[in-house]
Amino acid sequence: MGSVELILRIASRLAEDYRRGEKIVLVVSAMAKTTDSLFALAHQITRFPSRREMDMLLTAGERISMSLLSLALLEEGVPSISFTGSQSGIITNGNHGNARIKKVNAFRIHEELDKDKIVIVAGFQGVSTGKEITTLGRGGSDTSAVAMACYLKADRCEIYTDVDGVFTADPRVVPNARLIPEIGYKDMLALALSGSKVLHPRAVEYAMRHGVPVEVRSSFTFREGTTIKDEYNIKEGNMEKREIIAIAHKDQLLRYRIDASEKSIAMIAAWVDELHKISYHEEYIEVYIEPKYESDFEFALERAKVKTLGKLDELGSVSLIGDSLASDLKLMAELISLCKAIPKCSLSHSQTAVEFILPADKTADLVAKLHDEYLKEKQ
Amino acid sequence: MGSVELILRIASRLAEDYRRGEKIVLVVSAMAKTTDSLFALAHQITRFPSRREMDMLLTAGERISMSLLSLALLEEGVPSISFTGSQSGIITNGNHGNARIKKVNAFRIHEELDKDKIVIVAGFQGVSTGKEITTLGRGGSDTSAVAMACYLKADRCEIYTDVDGVFTADPRVVPNARLIPEIGYKDMLALALSGSKVLHPRAVEYAMRHGVPVEVRSSFTFREGTTIKDEYNIKEGNMEKREIIAIAHKDQLLRYRIDASEKSIAMIAAWVDELHKISYHEEYIEVYIEPKYESDFEFALERAKVKTLGKLDELGSVSLIGDSLASDLKLMAELISLCKAIPKCSLSHSQTAVEFILPADKTADLVAKLHDEYLKEKQ
Repeated sequence: MGSVELILRIASRLAEDYRRGEKIVLVVSAMAKTTDSLFALAHQITRFPSRREMDMLLTAGERISMSLLSLALLEEGVPSISFTGSQSGIITNGNHGNARIKKVNAFRIHEELDKDKIVIVAGFQGVSTGKEITTLGRGGSDTSAVAMACYLKADRCEIYTDVDGVFTADPRVVPNARLIPEIGYKDMLALALSGSKVLHPRAVEYAMRHGVPVEVRSSFTFREGTTIKDEYNIKEGNMEKREIIAIAHKDQLLRYRIDASEKSIAMIAAWVDELHKISYHEEYIEVYIEPKYESDFEFALERAKVKTLGKLDELGSVSLIGDSLASDLKLMAELISLCKAIPKCSLSHSQTAVEFILPADKTADLVAKLHDEYLKEKQ
Repeated sequence: MGSVELILRIASRLAEDYRRGEKIVLVVSAMAKTTDSLFALAHQITRFPSRREMDMLLTAGERISMSLLSLALLEEGVPSISFTGSQSGIITNGNHGNARIKKVNAFRIHEELDKDKIVIVAGFQGVSTGKEITTLGRGGSDTSAVAMACYLKADRCEIYTDVDGVFTADPRVVPNARLIPEIGYKDMLALALSGSKVLHPRAVEYAMRHGVPVEVRSSFTFREGTTIKDEYNIKEGNMEKREIIAIAHKDQLLRYRIDASEKSIAMIAAWVDELHKISYHEEYIEVYIEPKYESDFEFALERAKVKTLGKLDELGSVSLIGDSLASDLKLMAELISLCKAIPKCSLSHSQTAVEFILPADKTADLVAKLHDEYLKEKQ
């Protein structure tokens, strides 16, 4: 959520849907500025905040946006009520700052829906069985929304965000990138893991496991965006007989070369939210991470007593997303020759993606070149 | 609570008390700026906010201050934990915006005190038996603190505020007003009702009913302030054999002359938080209120279908606080002659106070004159 103006616009949009007779549960995030200013306050006090107290602090954010949105709906003449994570029955484990949803006891939500109210639910937060306030960590609001849609057996889950949907490449890098109207869960997950920021991988996984269709739309235009759904349900016409679905990239990666056992790698992976990639070599292991996880990662190395052999920064990744691309030998030959033409570039592949690792300042060029070659709209 | 600096100073003060072996439960209010900005956000959305959603919104304020204070204590090396009104077991009725505490189920607080933690409790808020978030209305944080002290059978309740304690008159009007070290509940209640803003009348009443001594101190200096306690326990030396304890005043009052039955007055009194004074005459009733209740009051008049015969503004009140002052005929004669010398001044009395109603611009002079006459320190 952006601001009061955004809240007002979303309220009037919801009022329209409501008057068409839809039953609506809305999961809200905090307003961006609120979260930033709460973090700033905490950091004036301590460099190492308690996760439990940070959960208490940050959950004030959704409380503010949900009550404001409810006030806006009431002002529109639409009956509405806001619920905290606890009141919504979002039960999590007790892992502060990164809790997992165990179940949703949504009886209060059903009660209010039966009274023809729009129910506004605080995303990102829940309550443990020990009555402690928890937050869900990165991607938490999206995950709350998807989880709520699953438990309520909703027809669909719409995610309103600051982009129009999922594109064939990042439109800031490739201006003629195309909006993808429908995409399968697995492709979306691969995209999310490879750098697309439209939907958090965790929310995609949740939707995939429960088979809930998720539609991503812009909260500015409300125009139709991208629907993420079972691959077998995607309409022939939209699937576009091509194997390459989209390109994702990250332009900030660090590579650590470490001397670690498989066991200590497992420990590190458990402590750090997200490792971009791990590659195993005879003499060492290479771990790629995004800079935002750097301090977590270094702390994990320390705790696991793992020696760092080297560290390289200013790397990036470019991934072609599509099923079994590596089995297309002609394509792979082309990609290998592209990679060879870039200094310090390497190539690897998985079931769902082919990935280049290369100097950060070369990523944008490669994204543009690949999009031009494989994803440009045929005239 | 004022700001991060104040939070840090309070944390270091609490750390000292804690290290002396005291068991501490701290009830916090929201930071002043937070409440103001939350109100401002709501008023960008609606002129008539739902009380239920306003409770949801405003309770974010204590959540922020309590978690920041807990972070500050942890940073000081003091184990601490913050609890919402609901987690603290503060059970209220369901009257949003002006709820009353029904009971306190403080088992979680006792558990954490037993673990040698400082427990920080969100003031001003509670939870209804229907699991709805409520707020206690005006004076709510003070009332929360006193209620908590009662239910926990605390030795004492300290209120940290922005003044040094209770003075013989408002020090901004009477620079040589003296700090009153000890004052009885009834006198304090009379003072609070007559305009002293040190402690809300509701908190004083609560303390009086339960016999909890309350000490008011400055959160800036932490110096000993005023203890409010049972009148029979006040030390001889401090009681100062005088009958006049202090002077309180209000310099903004409105007077409505209305044509109302006793029954409609009762209805109005139930709807408006605080009526300063009601006086009954043969032909009409006069109600004095502070301007902040004006819109509530006019709305109540409308609902009760009561006709206004006249309205006067720019009035003030000056009250001499002391037990049975009116039975001192010499004093009363002096006060009557003082009143006669002021145009449009009237005088009335109760068990605990003698009150002048007069033009607002004459209040400061009268306060100073009365203090000089009856309360000045004998050299």
